[in-house]
Amino acid sequence: MDIRKCAAEAIGTFWLTFAGCGSAVVAAAFPEVGIGLLGVALAFGLTVLTMAYSIGHISGCHLNPAVTIGLAAGRRFPTRDIVPYIVAQVLGGIVAAGLLYAIASGAPGFDLAKGFAANGYGEHSPGQYSLVSCLLAEVVLTLMFLFIIMGATHGKAPAGFAPLAIGLGLTLIHLVGIPITNLSVNPARSTGPALVAGGWALGQLWLFWVAPIIGGALGGILYRWLSEEPSAQVTGVPTAAAH
Amino acid sequence: MDIRKCAAEAIGTFWLTFAGCGSAVVAAAFPEVGIGLLGVALAFGLTVLTMAYSIGHISGCHLNPAVTIGLAAGRRFPTRDIVPYIVAQVLGGIVAAGLLYAIASGAPGFDLAKGFAANGYGEHSPGQYSLVSCLLAEVVLTLMFLFIIMGATHGKAPAGFAPLAIGLGLTLIHLVGIPITNLSVNPARSTGPALVAGGWALGQLWLFWVAPIIGGALGGILYRWLSEEPSAQVTGVPTAAAH
Amino acid sequence: MDIRKCAAEAIGTFWLTFAGCGSAVVAAAFPEVGIGLLGVALAFGLTVLTMAYSIGHISGCHLNPAVTIGLAAGRRFPTRDIVPYIVAQVLGGIVAAGLLYAIASGAPGFDLAKGFAANGYGEHSPGQYSLVSCLLAEVVLTLMFLFIIMGATHGKAPAGFAPLAIGLGLTLIHLVGIPITNLSVNPARSTGPALVAGGWALGQLWLFWVAPIIGGALGGILYRWLSEEPSAQVTGVPTAAAH
Amino acid sequence: MDIRKCAAEAIGTFWLTFAGCGSAVVAAAFPEVGIGLLGVALAFGLTVLTMAYSIGHISGCHLNPAVTIGLAAGRRFPTRDIVPYIVAQVLGGIVAAGLLYAIASGAPGFDLAKGFAANGYGEHSPGQYSLVSCLLAEVVLTLMFLFIIMGATHGKAPAGFAPLAIGLGLTLIHLVGIPITNLSVNPARSTGPALVAGGWALGQLWLFWVAPIIGGALGGILYRWLSEEPSAQVTGVPTAAAH
Repeated sequence: MDIRKCAAEAIGTFWLTFAGCGSAVVAAAFPEVGIGLLGVALAFGLTVLTMAYSIGHISGCHLNPAVTIGLAAGRRFPTRDIVPYIVAQVLGGIVAAGLLYAIASGAPGFDLAKGFAANGYGEHSPGQYSLVSCLLAEVVLTLMFLFIIMGATHGKAPAGFAPLAIGLGLTLIHLVGIPITNLSVNPARSTGPALVAGGWALGQLWLFWVAPIIGGALGGILYRWLSEEPSAQVTGVPTAAAH
Repeated sequence: MDIRKCAAEAIGTFWLTFAGCGSAVVAAAFPEVGIGLLGVALAFGLTVLTMAYSIGHISGCHLNPAVTIGLAAGRRFPTRDIVPYIVAQVLGGIVAAGLLYAIASGAPGFDLAKGFAANGYGEHSPGQYSLVSCLLAEVVLTLMFLFIIMGATHGKAPAGFAPLAIGLGLTLIHLVGIPITNLSVNPARSTGPALVAGGWALGQLWLFWVAPIIGGALGGILYRWLSEEPSAQVTGVPTAAAH
Repeated sequence: MDIRKCAAEAIGTFWLTFAGCGSAVVAAAFPEVGIGLLGVALAFGLTVLTMAYSIGHISGCHLNPAVTIGLAAGRRFPTRDIVPYIVAQVLGGIVAAGLLYAIASGAPGFDLAKGFAANGYGEHSPGQYSLVSCLLAEVVLTLMFLFIIMGATHGKAPAGFAPLAIGLGLTLIHLVGIPITNLSVNPARSTGPALVAGGWALGQLWLFWVAPIIGGALGGILYRWLSEEPSAQVTGVPTAAAH
Repeated sequence: MDIRKCAAEAIGTFWLTFAGCGSAVVAAAFPEVGIGLLGVALAFGLTVLTMAYSIGHISGCHLNPAVTIGLAAGRRFPTRDIVPYIVAQVLGGIVAAGLLYAIASGAPGFDLAKGFAANGYGEHSPGQYSLVSCLLAEVVLTLMFLFIIMGATHGKAPAGFAPLAIGLGLTLIHLVGIPITNLSVNPARSTGPALVAGGWALGQLWLFWVAPIIGGALGGILYRWLSEEPSAQVTGVPTAAAH
């Protein structure tokens, strides 16, 4: 395992969590001219788009444990590298949440009780969606996220466009899902803010590990079946994006 | 007819209907920070963009009976494959509407009577547009959609950019047309929500089969005339996008 | 002059005017979830993006008399083809405005007195900007539009991306200028709606021919100077976009 | 130092400041249909995207003293060209602010006291963020901006996409940071409006030179370490974008 790859994953997941959750905490509900959920959806997608072009050629730019596991399930990523990737991603997400807290708490109107962009279900779902609805949504949306990643980085897809498809795909997923769970599809992105927010956010964090990982694995398997890739294609080179 | 192509069309149309209509049902009118019609327009376009990069190299990524028929009229798609493609697309749209209902109905404020993103005209048009206006809009917008698809996938257009042009073209079409008919240009996308919503939505569904198919066929023919493609170019390979 | 090129310019300018002005008339101020000026800006830009990928390889995709004249001033377009291009563009814009009127007037709330997306200055500027401000804005914004077009289609710019840069450049120009003049930078786009709206819109139309043409010509000349292109590069092939 | 490169930097920074700040001053808070902070964020990003495709092959399209210094710190830009680039950028920003004032002051509702898009901290931060929060945000966001620029223009990144990644990266940075400092990450963009607005804006200008330059230099150094580029790669050719 190359230390540079883990550093790239940590920095990239830092960026996803800092700028994605930052747009939600700082700008979504700014009076009169706030960016709304559309702006937050765009922000999350652009964190992946920008990182995929910048570090895709270093680490494959997963930035997400569900992506790492889904790509392994789809036989695009070696099993032995799963753990170091996930550790780096979670660390990046935690540092991002801490720095975001340091900056955001410097405003007079800041209130951690507003949720700090943590994910939740039931009474902590933005739209009070039930646990079953939240579980279904996170599984299906992560499944389709991996389907997009597997497809856009397939050898027959046009080269260079994968970061666009994947980043804008994450924007699309947020356009549907923020009112349901505040949208995770990414356990590392969920863990950082939950640690800062504490309380219910930590108590509900399990869902945002379980559902994205199940969905991610299913998505990797589904695309592999659809594209009938021979299993011999497994290599040691991560290729999630920007090849 | 390859089963993988039909599976790809079913999954892709599932995604178009689930995420496109899902953004409308779940997030468009969310209080204070809702994504509005702009967010819904972006969502529909991004469903096509993401799928075109992911499955364009498998099935051509039509996701729409009007596209399949329009490409056949433009001599880009073999007539014998029209029916299986359309069956797969309609199935994908129906499954999407069912799953969206399962998720969306888990929120306390859900009300099927709000329309469930079904398409309508007259008193069921979002802006109460007349039947004639709705018919005209659907024909013209589908015509231009096929014109864009035929042009962006033409051999002289820059390779790899077709999914961008086509996906963002669908966003553009929604930016104009949602207030008129809730915007279809796609019979499969219309059928799923109409089956769930029932009542008037089923009664008005005919328009969203007739108008898009007329428009799509005209668009395919218009572009073929403009580009003076020899009819000998007909092949068995669908090439709607992402080649 | 090839009839196919003129047909492509007419269809493309039809699309720019129909979908751009259509988004403004139909969707900008739709209650609660309207797309606003941001949606209109995106719509205008996407009309150019979609057409540049579809017909760029046929006519160069000018869709705008100021672009045609600016490219000629920049020695990228032959002088003898200016008139037929402009005639085709103006015809496309007029047909678009007529069809848009036919559709939009089918809604109960339609009122031509709201302006029908016509351009204006002084008391008919959306933000009551003075004639001098409006003139300055249209000249400078068209100048930079041509600068972008000349640059993004330059032989040293990356191939295939010009439609993106030019289309999104038009979006950017609208993000600044709609409150000033309702934003023209395009005499053909201004002429169609002015003919339908009549009255003050026709009386103020002169500005939206004069200013964009001055700005366009200056932009073409400025970029040519900056890039030190030898004048021998003039050819008969229009190359505004998409190759 | 080539005069054409300096002219390109001046024109490009003019565009960034004129259209970026112009969207904020003219359109952000337009009644009912204003573009909001999301529109302003998009506008700033698109100024860079459009210029990177247009003049990237001339000057590298820095448009920002922090980018020029950051690229030098990352050994992508020769130290001897830093000063002429920065002089050209600042001149472009000042001319832009003057022209924007000339246009914007032609509207009845114009009021320079609204801030004229100048950057500020503490009581002049849009959301009243503290000096420490503002300093942290500008350093971190400029750091990541340079990280994206260095990565997307790396030789192993897909060719042609850097302007997209960098422009949309600037949009992303604005989605997070406008409520904090009105978002600078660019001393040239800050200087022009501060000179027009005067008073507190000039008094707080120092922060928007110091923080972006520190962040930019750190970002250049961080990416260089991550990508382990040999220092022998330094050349005289600026390569920030669009190679």
